[in-house]
Amino acid sequence: MKKHKTIIRVRYQETDNMGLVYYANYLVWFEVARTEYLRAAGISYRELENKGLYLVVAKAVCEYKSPARYDDQIAVETWVPSMRNSSLSFEYNVTLGGRLLAAGITDHVFVNKNGRPARIPGWLKGQITSSG
Amino acid sequence: MKKHKTIIRVRYQETDNMGLVYYANYLVWFEVARTEYLRAAGISYRELENKGLYLVVAKAVCEYKSPARYDDQIAVETWVPSMRNSSLSFEYNVTLGGRLLAAGITDHVFVNKNGRPARIPGWLKGQITSSG
Amino acid sequence: MKKHKTIIRVRYQETDNMGLVYYANYLVWFEVARTEYLRAAGISYRELENKGLYLVVAKAVCEYKSPARYDDQIAVETWVPSMRNSSLSFEYNVTLGGRLLAAGITDHVFVNKNGRPARIPGWLKGQITSSG
Amino acid sequence: MKKHKTIIRVRYQETDNMGLVYYANYLVWFEVARTEYLRAAGISYRELENKGLYLVVAKAVCEYKSPARYDDQIAVETWVPSMRNSSLSFEYNVTLGGRLLAAGITDHVFVNKNGRPARIPGWLKGQITSSG
Repeated sequence: MKKHKTIIRVRYQETDNMGLVYYANYLVWFEVARTEYLRAAGISYRELENKGLYLVVAKAVCEYKSPARYDDQIAVETWVPSMRNSSLSFEYNVTLGGRLLAAGITDHVFVNKNGRPARIPGWLKGQITSSG
Repeated sequence: MKKHKTIIRVRYQETDNMGLVYYANYLVWFEVARTEYLRAAGISYRELENKGLYLVVAKAVCEYKSPARYDDQIAVETWVPSMRNSSLSFEYNVTLGGRLLAAGITDHVFVNKNGRPARIPGWLKGQITSSG
Repeated sequence: MKKHKTIIRVRYQETDNMGLVYYANYLVWFEVARTEYLRAAGISYRELENKGLYLVVAKAVCEYKSPARYDDQIAVETWVPSMRNSSLSFEYNVTLGGRLLAAGITDHVFVNKNGRPARIPGWLKGQITSSG
Repeated sequence: MKKHKTIIRVRYQETDNMGLVYYANYLVWFEVARTEYLRAAGISYRELENKGLYLVVAKAVCEYKSPARYDDQIAVETWVPSMRNSSLSFEYNVTLGGRLLAAGITDHVFVNKNGRPARIPGWLKGQITSSG
């Protein structure tokens, strides 16, 4: 799948004392966007977990360019720049009316119920690379 | 145990667009205060869960009198006004420098791993009523 | 306006150690539902704040009937049971596939920039009572 | 100041469906640790904001090595690796019983009330470099 766009309305809860969105909430939006990216590729992350496959975060990076505010309707463009045997990365652009607010990357490892690295199932790789 | 006081420093994350603490965070403070109340009574809530006993919330009430702000060092006075066979309540007063900011009540049910109501163990009742 | 329904997808961030939605997050959903209720009645809460009118929470109550889980698509039905000169209440039913998960009430006071109670503007009362 | 250590007890609210701490909460801990680092250096961040000086986040990075769990008492070691005219960075090591759980960096810009970059006051630079 090329890119997927998730629309999120900024919640009052996500703002802070500066009147802007608190910086950790961009990672929450990344998570929402990951779930929606996978769903658009035909993958339910909830079902993956029910099957004992977990997508654990190994690293997260976010660059903040311009602030988001309460009630803004932001877009999170999401794509998978790389995928290996048991790990993959997501990249994100958070935009408001076409303007880039933030850019992020998260690196993930697939693990099983015991927390051991697990190979990404072939069908899942296929869904991510082929769909869209 | 009569009452237990937990001191909490307001986090920037807990503030909102109004420059005040967001209202749902008082319930987070109540949870922190419950854990500390139980610890002061000799009870580790983490160990309770490891033994398969869960304290599920059935109802939460909070009255907001005066706002808390970033970096305020607030106190949460906590006590158990009533305890039945498989349920108990907590009450909370959130204060800043002696002034009442908020007052709350949470009602809880003890359940086992299957989500079924469970009797509160005698030793636990004893710890709560006798200690302090 | 009679009732307004807001659909919310449960975020991973909103779950906790029990595998269920953390109890304070229902108050976050109530806030999201309030904003959408007002928007459906033709009122932008962001613009209200920009005009110096704030809807401060005086009391919040939530009864928890049945848990919500990650990725559930819950609905929050919202209505205004009563409105006075400078205060109003919201009621909420959180449902999943028609089943009631939680029910809540929040009481609010309208205040101006100085935190003093302010009369609810006539046009705003009109929007709430007449629309829908 | 060399390094400052902030002790944080993991809240139930900070855990997620996996039974571990949700990844965005490490950034919340970094913020708590920044406030405490500054306080230990004789600087109240709240007073800085009251004077119209804001420490805006430009970039945040976190590497996750090992998970934290509910009720863990983690330590956040914090230091300032570099400081320029109007920007500075913080580094963080999150540890549990000496074991590294996560490592992070946040880059910040000082801005005034209008959001324009502002020089870091000399006294503030002095407090950070000399104290401890």
